[in-house]
Amino acid sequence: MSFIEVPENSDFTIHNLPYGVFSTKNSQQRRIGVAIGQQILDLSAIKHLFTSPQLQGRQDVFSQTTLNAFMALPRAAWLEARTTLQKLLSKDCETLQNDKDLRGKAFVNQADAQLHLPVQVGDYTDFYSSIYHATNGTKMFLGVDELGGNWKHLPTAYNGRASSIVASGTNIRRPRGQYKENKDLPPTFGPTKQLDYELEMAFLVGGPPTQFGEPIAVENAEDHIFGMVILNDWSSRDVQKWEMTPLGPFLGKSFGTSISPWVVTMEALKPFVVDNPKQDPEPLPYLRHCDPYSFDINVEASIKPNGSDVFYPVSKTSFRHHYWTMKQQLAHHTVNGCNVNPGDLMGSGTVSGPTDGELGCMLELNWNCSRWVRLGDQKRHYLEDGDEVVMRAHCEKNGVHVGFGECRGKVLPALP
Amino acid sequence: MSFIEVPENSDFTIHNLPYGVFSTKNSQQRRIGVAIGQQILDLSAIKHLFTSPQLQGRQDVFSQTTLNAFMALPRAAWLEARTTLQKLLSKDCETLQNDKDLRGKAFVNQADAQLHLPVQVGDYTDFYSSIYHATNGTKMFLGVDELGGNWKHLPTAYNGRASSIVASGTNIRRPRGQYKENKDLPPTFGPTKQLDYELEMAFLVGGPPTQFGEPIAVENAEDHIFGMVILNDWSSRDVQKWEMTPLGPFLGKSFGTSISPWVVTMEALKPFVVDNPKQDPEPLPYLRHCDPYSFDINVEASIKPNGSDVFYPVSKTSFRHHYWTMKQQLAHHTVNGCNVNPGDLMGSGTVSGPTDGELGCMLELNWNCSRWVRLGDQKRHYLEDGDEVVMRAHCEKNGVHVGFGECRGKVLPALP
Repeated sequence: MSFIEVPENSDFTIHNLPYGVFSTKNSQQRRIGVAIGQQILDLSAIKHLFTSPQLQGRQDVFSQTTLNAFMALPRAAWLEARTTLQKLLSKDCETLQNDKDLRGKAFVNQADAQLHLPVQVGDYTDFYSSIYHATNGTKMFLGVDELGGNWKHLPTAYNGRASSIVASGTNIRRPRGQYKENKDLPPTFGPTKQLDYELEMAFLVGGPPTQFGEPIAVENAEDHIFGMVILNDWSSRDVQKWEMTPLGPFLGKSFGTSISPWVVTMEALKPFVVDNPKQDPEPLPYLRHCDPYSFDINVEASIKPNGSDVFYPVSKTSFRHHYWTMKQQLAHHTVNGCNVNPGDLMGSGTVSGPTDGELGCMLELNWNCSRWVRLGDQKRHYLEDGDEVVMRAHCEKNGVHVGFGECRGKVLPALP
Repeated sequence: MSFIEVPENSDFTIHNLPYGVFSTKNSQQRRIGVAIGQQILDLSAIKHLFTSPQLQGRQDVFSQTTLNAFMALPRAAWLEARTTLQKLLSKDCETLQNDKDLRGKAFVNQADAQLHLPVQVGDYTDFYSSIYHATNGTKMFLGVDELGGNWKHLPTAYNGRASSIVASGTNIRRPRGQYKENKDLPPTFGPTKQLDYELEMAFLVGGPPTQFGEPIAVENAEDHIFGMVILNDWSSRDVQKWEMTPLGPFLGKSFGTSISPWVVTMEALKPFVVDNPKQDPEPLPYLRHCDPYSFDINVEASIKPNGSDVFYPVSKTSFRHHYWTMKQQLAHHTVNGCNVNPGDLMGSGTVSGPTDGELGCMLELNWNCSRWVRLGDQKRHYLEDGDEVVMRAHCEKNGVHVGFGECRGKVLPALP
C-alpha cells in the first residue's frame, strides 16, 4: 500500500509505477516521472534517493528529458529502481512520506501536467503478429481461410517511420495521397477516404545498445525489453492498398503514429503472464523458447464521433492472443546482426482476437465495407473528420490492477 | 584555384568542398571538416571566420560531432558557408593562406584522418527509382517486359533501418536468416547464400525540421536537399525473397547499409544538372516540376575478390538515368504530412542504366543466376566471404571535376 491515495480502479497502483516524461505550466522543463494514483512522482527531485549498487553514481539518468538514458542501463538497474520506488512510496517507509519539503517538490498532480513522448525513438518497427488480424486480411483480400507464405514461420514486420511518432493527445491531420478509386482508371490524388486506426501494443527496447552484427539470442531477449505502451497505428487504407506492392506500407502509415505516455515495465506486467499460444509448425530453433512470455493485457478502442460527447467501444480483446511473443520478435529482428538501441519502438501489429467483437481496426470491423461500425445513432466505415479515437489497456488479476492509461487522438480535416 | 595543392583528377577540387566528420590519432575528438585535395580543412579551427549574416552567431554548428546542426540551418546559410570556404581557400585570399599558425592548426592530411558517419541519421528511406533496375526485376520475377502497378505513378519507397547505417570501411558480417532452398520444403536457417551489393546514391535532408502534418511542396523541395553521398544497400536476396511478401524488405536489408563519408552539396553538383527523363504518364500535379533536377553523376562498383589485390569493375552507369527526381521523391514522401528532419537519409534505389554493363547489383548481373559475374579468373553469382566492394562516383564537365570519394566494405564470414 502506498501513502499516496490510489483511487479504486486506478491504472497507477503501487504494483505498476510506469515511467513518463512531463512538464507543468510552472516549469516547462521536461522531466521524468512515475505515475502513482492521480499524482506524478518527479524523479529529478528525488534522484539522490536512488543509492542502490546499479544506480549510485548514475542518478543523472533521472534528470534527463527522455527515458533513453535510464533505459540504456542494464536490466538490473531497472529492477533496483523499481524496488527503490516501491519502498519510497510505501506506507511503511518514512523517507519521502515524512519529508514535507521534499514531498512538496516531488509530487505533481497529473491534472496539472502535460505528458510528452517518453522516449526519443531511434528506429520504429511494426510487427504483424496477431493471427486473427492476419487471417482476416487474408480472407478479405485473397478469399482464402488459411494463412500461407511465411506468416507462421517468422514474425513478419516492416520498418516504420520514427519521425512521425507523437504523444497521445496530438491531433492527426487526415492525410492526402494517391489511391485508386476505380481499378480501371489512373490513380487520383486527394484526402484519404479510408482513414483507420489500428489498436496495437508496443514494446520499448532497453539495455545498452547492441553491437552492429551481433544478434540477441531469444534466451537473452528479456534483457532488452524495457516496457510497453499502447500504440495507434493510424492507417490510410486506400493509400496503403495502392502503394504497398511490392515494397510494403509507406505513406499509408507514416503520417502519424500515437503512443500512450506511460511506459509500463515488464516487471509490472509479470503477474499477468500466460502460456504462449501453440505454434504449429514449430518455429526454427532460433525462435524457440519455452518460458511463458504472453501477457493477458485487456485492450480496447473507442470512438467519439464528431459532434458527440460519448465514446463508443468498438474493439475489445486481449493481447494474450498474439501468436509471436516479444522475445521471438526481438530475436528475429536481430538474427541478421541488425543492432538495436534503447528507445527503439516495436509495435505488435493490430491486436485482434478470435470473435467478431475483438477486431482491432475498422478494416476488419467493416469487412471490406460490407458492414457498418455503429456509434450510437451514427455509423461509419472509416473515420470522419472530428472523430476521436481513444485506446485503453489494463491487466487485472487477484485484485491487482496495472493499467496503461490512454492513447488518444482526434482527426483534423485534410489540408486544402 | 586554391592555394592548397589539388592533384589532377582529385575528387576534392575547390569546386567541390564536401563536408565530413573526422578524427585523428592525436585528437580522437570528432570534428567537421571539408576535403580539399589531399587535405581536410578543420572547420572547428576556423569557425570564427564564418562571419556572413546567416552564420554570424551560429558558428558553433562547426564545432559539433556531426553535420546535423549545420544542415538544420536554412539553405541560405549553406550557400554562405560555401562562398566563405571558396574564398578562404582561394589563391587570392590571404586570411588563411598567410596565417601560418592557423594553417598549422586547421589542416590535416586525409591520410592521417579517420572518417566517420557524417550525420546522425534520424530516419532512412530507400526509394526504387531506376526504371532500368525496376524493369529488370519485373522481367526476372514476373516474366513481363513492362512495369505495371504504381511504379510510373509514384516514386516507390520503403522505410529502411537507420541503426545499421555505417561509415565506409566498416566490415559487413554475412547475415544469417530464414530462406527457402526448395520451394516445396519448409524454410531453413543459415548464413545467406545470396549476398549482394546495391549501387545507390542518396541525399541528406537539410533545413529546419518540418512540422508534423505539413508537406514539402515540390517547388520548395530544394530548400530541404542538402547534399549527396554514395550508398551501398547490402542485400541478402534469399532472405529478402522469402520475407518480403506482403510487408516489404526487412532483414534482407537491415544488417548493414554503408555510406561514403563526404557529403557533396547540391550547390557543387549544380553544374552537372541535366534534363529530367521524360515521364509518361504525366505524374499527378503534386509531383510535377519543370526545372531540371537530374544529375549526371558517374557511378561505379568494383569487387576485389577474396585473395586478390585487384578491384574488378562490375557496375558502371550514370545517375542521370534515374526516373524520379529527388524533388519528386521528397514531395511524395511528405505529401501525407510525414515530417522530415535534417540528417534524414534518402536512398535512390539501385542505380542501373539501359545497357548490360550498367546493372547496379549482382541480382541483375547474374540474371537469376543464369550468368556469371567475372572477376579476373574468378567468377561469382553472389559475394563470397572476404570479397570487398568499393563504389565511386564523380561528375566531370568542361574540366571541372567533383567527386564523392569512395564507399567501401568487406564481407566477413557469418557467425557460427
